[in-house]
Formats: sequence, C-alpha cells, structure tokens
Amino acid sequence: MIKTDILIIGAGPTGLFTVFEAGLLKLKTHLIDALPQPGGQCSEIYPKKPIYDIPGFPEILAGDLVNNLMEQIKPFEPGFTLGERAETIEKLEDDTFLVTTNKGTKHNAPVVAIAGGLGSFEPRKPPIPNIIDFEDKGVAYIIRDPEVYRDKRVVIAGGGDSALDWTIFLADVASEVTLVHRRNEFRGALDSVERVAELTKLGKVNLITEAEVKELKGDDHVTGVGIKHKTEGDIHVDTDYFIPLFGLSPKLGPIGNWGLEIEKNAIKVDNSYDYQTNIPGIYAIGDVNTYKGKLKLILSGFHEAAIMCQSAYQRIFPDKKYVMKYTTVGGVEGFDGSKKEAKKEVVKAIV
Amino acid sequence: MIKTDILIIGAGPTGLFTVFEAGLLKLKTHLIDALPQPGGQCSEIYPKKPIYDIPGFPEILAGDLVNNLMEQIKPFEPGFTLGERAETIEKLEDDTFLVTTNKGTKHNAPVVAIAGGLGSFEPRKPPIPNIIDFEDKGVAYIIRDPEVYRDKRVVIAGGGDSALDWTIFLADVASEVTLVHRRNEFRGALDSVERVAELTKLGKVNLITEAEVKELKGDDHVTGVGIKHKTEGDIHVDTDYFIPLFGLSPKLGPIGNWGLEIEKNAIKVDNSYDYQTNIPGIYAIGDVNTYKGKLKLILSGFHEAAIMCQSAYQRIFPDKKYVMKYTTVGGVEGFDGSKKEAKKEVVKAIV
Ligand SMILES: Cc1cc2nc3c(=O)[nH]c(=O)nc-3n(C[C@H](O)[C@H](O)[C@H](O)COP(=O)(O)OP(=O)(O)OC[C@H]3O[C@@H](n4cnc5c(N)ncnc54)[C@H](O)[C@@H]3O)c2cc1C
Ligand SMILES: Cc1cc2nc3c(=O)[nH]c(=O)nc-3n(C[C@H](O)[C@H](O)[C@H](O)COP(=O)(O)OP(=O)(O)OC[C@H]3O[C@@H](n4cnc5c(N)ncnc54)[C@H](O)[C@@H]3O)c2cc1C
Repeated sequence: MIKTDILIIGAGPTGLFTVFEAGLLKLKTHLIDALPQPGGQCSEIYPKKPIYDIPGFPEILAGDLVNNLMEQIKPFEPGFTLGERAETIEKLEDDTFLVTTNKGTKHNAPVVAIAGGLGSFEPRKPPIPNIIDFEDKGVAYIIRDPEVYRDKRVVIAGGGDSALDWTIFLADVASEVTLVHRRNEFRGALDSVERVAELTKLGKVNLITEAEVKELKGDDHVTGVGIKHKTEGDIHVDTDYFIPLFGLSPKLGPIGNWGLEIEKNAIKVDNSYDYQTNIPGIYAIGDVNTYKGKLKLILSGFHEAAIMCQSAYQRIFPDKKYVMKYTTVGGVEGFDGSKKEAKKEVVKAIV
Repeated sequence: MIKTDILIIGAGPTGLFTVFEAGLLKLKTHLIDALPQPGGQCSEIYPKKPIYDIPGFPEILAGDLVNNLMEQIKPFEPGFTLGERAETIEKLEDDTFLVTTNKGTKHNAPVVAIAGGLGSFEPRKPPIPNIIDFEDKGVAYIIRDPEVYRDKRVVIAGGGDSALDWTIFLADVASEVTLVHRRNEFRGALDSVERVAELTKLGKVNLITEAEVKELKGDDHVTGVGIKHKTEGDIHVDTDYFIPLFGLSPKLGPIGNWGLEIEKNAIKVDNSYDYQTNIPGIYAIGDVNTYKGKLKLILSGFHEAAIMCQSAYQRIFPDKKYVMKYTTVGGVEGFDGSKKEAKKEVVKAIV
C-alpha cells in the first residue's frame, strides 16, 4: 500500500503544482492519473499549442509548461501511479482515506486532493452497437504493446495524428493494415499524411476514406468489420483486430459516485475558504471544482492549490502553527536534500 | 482628465496582470503608482532576488517577472500615471469614479481595481524631531534631479545601495559629500562599497561610520547637521542638503480613508465571488485585500485579477454575455492591432 500525506488524483497542471505547495509545507505527495503521462489536458490534448495567459509567460507551449512544472516539483520527489484510474474511496477508522485504482493499487492518506480536471481521460468509442462485447477480444482503443499485432491483420479507424502514426508504425509489423477515415482530409502532421499516402501507393496500407466502420463480426474474437462507404456502399474487410483511434475524452467517471456534491459535472467546494468538498479531508481544485464565478483556467488551479495545502496542513497537524515564509526569503528545501536559496546581500566593512 | 474602463491603483504584479485579463475582455486599463517604475515590491524591494513559487518558473528574478509581465501586457497599451499617489476618490452622478492623485492628476472610470499591495511606497524617515519642518527646505528623501546639488554641500545618510550609489554619483556633482552610516558594514553591491572606500581615500567623500544624524540646524533652510558618533561624541557638519536614504516602506495611506472596510491594514473583499469591496464597483486584489485564508502571494493576485475582471465586465456591460475563450483557441488580440494565435493544425487531403 502506498502511503503519503496528500494523495492527489489527477496529474494535470493543478495536481502537479500541488506537489510544490505541499512540499513547501514539508508534506509528501503522490499522484494518480489515468493517463500514462503527467500534464492532463495540456499533455493529452494540446502539448504543441501556445498558451498566452499563464502569468509571466507572454507565450508558452502547453507541453513546455508541463515540463517546467515537472522540473519545479522535482525536489519534492512526488510518487506517481500512472495509467490507472482512481476507482473507489473509503474512509478508514483512523480518519484517513483509502483510494483504490481500477488495477487494484491501494493508496492511503489523511488528505485527498482531487485535481481531476474534466475527468479521467477515456477513449472515445465509435457508435457500433456490440463493440463493448469485443473489448480485449480484438478491439483496442489504445495501443500499449505493438508486438501484439505482429503478423496479424489490423483495421485502424481515425483521421488524427494517432491514427496516422500507428498506421505508419504497424505497416512494418502487421501482415495487413487498413486505415478507415470518414473524410478525405486528415488532421495531422504534414509528414505523417504524406507517409501514409506513400505507403498506400506501395500497397503496404489499404486506405479507405469517406467511410466508417459500422459493424463488428466474429464470435469470441473479431474476425472482420463491415464498412459503409459514402458512394460505394458496404465493404467487408477480414481482420484480427479493430483499433478505433478517435482520441481520449475526459469523463468525471467514478469520482461522481464518491458521495461528493456534484453540480454541472463538477465538484462543489467552499471557495470562501479552502476548496474543501462536503467531505472533510477531501478537497477539489482546478477544473474539477465549481463555485460561483469559477473560471476553468490554469492560473486558478495554481491559486486553489496553494490555499488548499494550507488547510491540509492544519488537518494533518492540528496543533502546529505554520508560519509562511516567502520562497525568496526562506529558500526551497527539497526532500532530495537539495536547497535553493537567494544569494545573501553583500555585506562588507569599509573601514 | 484620464478616462479608462478599469482604473488600477498599484502597478505591482497584480495590477500589471489585471491589464492582461481586462484586455482579453476588450477592456481598457490605466495604472497609478506612487513609485516611478512598475513592479511594486518586486521592483522596489528585491528585483535581483529569485522567486521560486511562481508556477512554471522553477526560479525567476523578481525583476525579470516584472519585465515578462510588462511584455505580456504590452498589446493592451495600458496607460500609466507613475510617481503619483492616488489620494481621493469620488463617486460621480453617472455612477463612475473620479480618482485624484497628490499631484492633482484626475482619472475617471466605471470600475476601480485597488491593487495597492502593502500600500504606496513612502520614504522611511529618520527620527529627527524637526525633520518635517525642513522637507523641501534642504531635506530630500528621494533624489529626482541631481543637478539641484551641483556645487552644494550634501550630507547623505544610509548604508544600502541607494546611499552608496548616490554618494558615488554626487561626489562628482556636489562641492562636498558626507556619508553618514550607523555601522561599519554596508549592505550593497561589492563594487559600490569599494568605490566609496576609494573616493574616501581620495578625499572626495567624507565618510563617517558608526554615527547617526540626530539634529538639523538652520532657519528656513538646512545649514548643518548634528551627528552623534559611537565613540567620538558629537560632530557638527555644515551642509546645504540632508538626504536620508533609508529605503521606502509601504503605507496603506489615503486608501484607508475611502470608506472601505479595513481589517488588519488590508481591505476586506468578497472572496466567495468577485473580490469586490463593500463599495460596488471598487474591487481590491492582491496583497492589499484580506479574507479568510488569504495568502499574500503573487500567484494569488493573478487569480484574483482574472476573477475580478469578469465581474467588472458585467458591471460595465450589464446586458452583454461574455463567453470565455481559451487564449490557445481564441488567440490574443491587442489594442495595438497585434494578434497572437496558435498555428492551425495541418489539414491535407490524401487522395
Ligand atoms: C484546447 C484547449 C486549450 C486550452 N487553452 C487554455 C488557455 O489558453 N489558458 C488556460 O488557462 N487554460 C486553457 N485550457 C484549459 C486548461 O488546459 C485546463 O484549465 C487545465 O488543464 C486544468 O488543469 P487540471 O490540472 O485542473 O485538470 P486536467 O488538465 O484536466 O488534468 C486532470 C487529470 O486528472 C486525471 N483524472 C481525472 N479523474 C481521474 C481518476 N478518477 N483517476 C485517475 N486520473 C484521473 C485525468 O486523466 C487528467 O490527466 C485549454 C484547454 C483545452 C482543451
Ligand atoms: C523580500 C520579499 C520577498 C518576497 N518573496 C515572495 C515569494 O517568494 N513569492 C511570492 O509569491 N511573493 C513574495 N513576496 C511578496 C510579493 O512581492 C507580493 O505578494 C506582491 O508584490 C504583491 O503584489 P501586488 O501587486 O498585490 O502589490 P505590490 O507589489 O505591493 O504593489 C502595490 C503597488 O501599489 C502602489 N500603491 C499603493 N497604494 C497606492 C496609492 N494610494 N497610490 C499609488 N500607488 C499606490 C505601491 O506603490 C506599489 O507599487 C515577497 C515580498 C518581499 C518583500
């Protein structure tokens, strides 16, 4: 079981900066995220796009902001449970919380900070009636280990970078690759689009555009897909795997059943004080919370994290009085033994 | 009379970032600050010191943060009234505010955002009983025009950079420069300390350490100072000017008399919504405000500014509905005609 002071659910910008604010108070942190990498929306949706309203950065790529935050929190050695979704929460007798993921990993802490953003990122599924029956039986929404597809037939669906990149990659691994896309245009890097066109000419990729997979065939494993083409009608393709890559979309998911007050798909918090939820010890910060006037902005999550950590400190150490020191004045002492501090002013005797 | 949408009192980091958030909403801004330069505490007290808790910056010099903010807000062309203190506020018949400075400059706006930090920076005065009588009659706390001292005798007091720098500068201008400092050690750049030592050896500066100016002499203008030396007793120095340079210290000052609810030397605001004060249309953000759990941190001022501007927008345009757009998605359109925006994704037909 993983034990920490503040268990943070969600490793988006808000969750990451919480590590820093907690660290200043000498509190340890551990983060859970459904995604395989930290950064939340910034990493998953728009890592290469500039943000203009991060204070002090006239312009910064979302991915660079995440890298900077990772560097800023490094001295506080946060733990990470990545690629797992926080599924259940339980209050223990000693007043601490036990959070278990969909893979069974258990985490224990006196304070839980939900920084879950718009929710945990889940694959967008195409509207094929029996698709759920074939999950893990030939249908995959995320490619974890491409070796699974060696010398097999695969049908990929989608028109973004992910679909293009895996089509190119699997062309060398699978025995047969079909890419199905609704339109003639792709939304992806120019390079990738050109490479797929080339592979199609070489006969290494079977490209079907203006078409959609509408049907899955097979008994206890996929054996083929039924495709509807805009002008040519129905097409059947034999295949071992069907991989729809339509991106990930966030879903509040299991957190919605934790007994927290929910409003507009977000968690209600006390913004007049410490961003605590209706369950003492559980806080909600960043995009995942709501209150009158709430702005779903990155800079808001930062402020909420700072305030929240002060309250968490009091919960964990009810008898201690924390005296805030500016980082400029007190420096930053990492749990890794590092210490950052301002150079002292030059003091020199003249006579 | 200067007219604007949001009149910001205080050009510290909070006031500066307010320009940006207002600009996104197409609201014009004008800033008043008692200091001759923008940046508030960051510029006045610790421009060369690193801050470690600005989100996304593992380390940034306070002065660089101010420079970055100035660059970030440039497209919104804020107006500045610098070196003047906002002195009085008046509500006009049309529900707008009239703010007048100590120099009589008048500003008019429907919304006032007080971002006054710890207050307007005022010179720290030495405890000499009759010093007030000699202000502008030989006593100066800030050097605005060094030519005033050409071929005159000056006594400077202080042990920091300001006292050292002006001693060096005036050694070439004044007919006689005396530097009086309480201690043997100076708190200033090594270079400056060495240069003053050199000038003292050359007889160009008269250095008196471990001593304090205790008395001012003269009728309607300073003619001399009485100095108490730690070991040598009383010393008299004839002089035309006495310039105590003990730094500036912030005082809430006139804002304290504007009818705002004050608590712990700060302005009470509604932090459960929009950081408005008890007077509708007047907001208080950043270090100058107080509420349960308030943290006097730079990152808090940023969040408060963003929230406050949304409320100001509704006050100014009660009938319009503002739809927030992420800067990444909507770009940033400056009032100067500039436009920043993310590159569009590559869209290309493959067949
Ligand atoms: C295209 C686009 C442009 C944007 N532009 C801007 C902009 O210019 N300025 C700005 O301020 N903001 C912008 N935003 C919004 C900004 O990205 C969000 O405000 C920010 O990401 C919120 O951070 P967060 O950490 O609160 O949540 P998120 O970034 O959403 O991170 C939450 C994380 O929690 C995880 N999670 C949730 N539930 C669970 C669970 N049960 N178990 C495990 N993990 C879970 C999710 O997987 C996710 O990684 C933009 C957003 C988008 C999509
Ligand atoms: C040594 C030191 C180290 C610090 N380290 C950190 C740190 O590591 N992290 C952190 O987050 N914070 C730190 N701080 C605090 C940080 O500087 C403040 O939180 C921040 O400056 C507040 O910004 P502000 O814009 O609200 O106010 P200020 O920076 O105080 O600016 C307010 C401005 O308003 C002006 N003003 C006030 N009244 C009037 C008036 N009537 N008329 C005209 N002008 C007026 C003042 O002259 C001033 O320029 C530190 C402060 C100091 C002194």
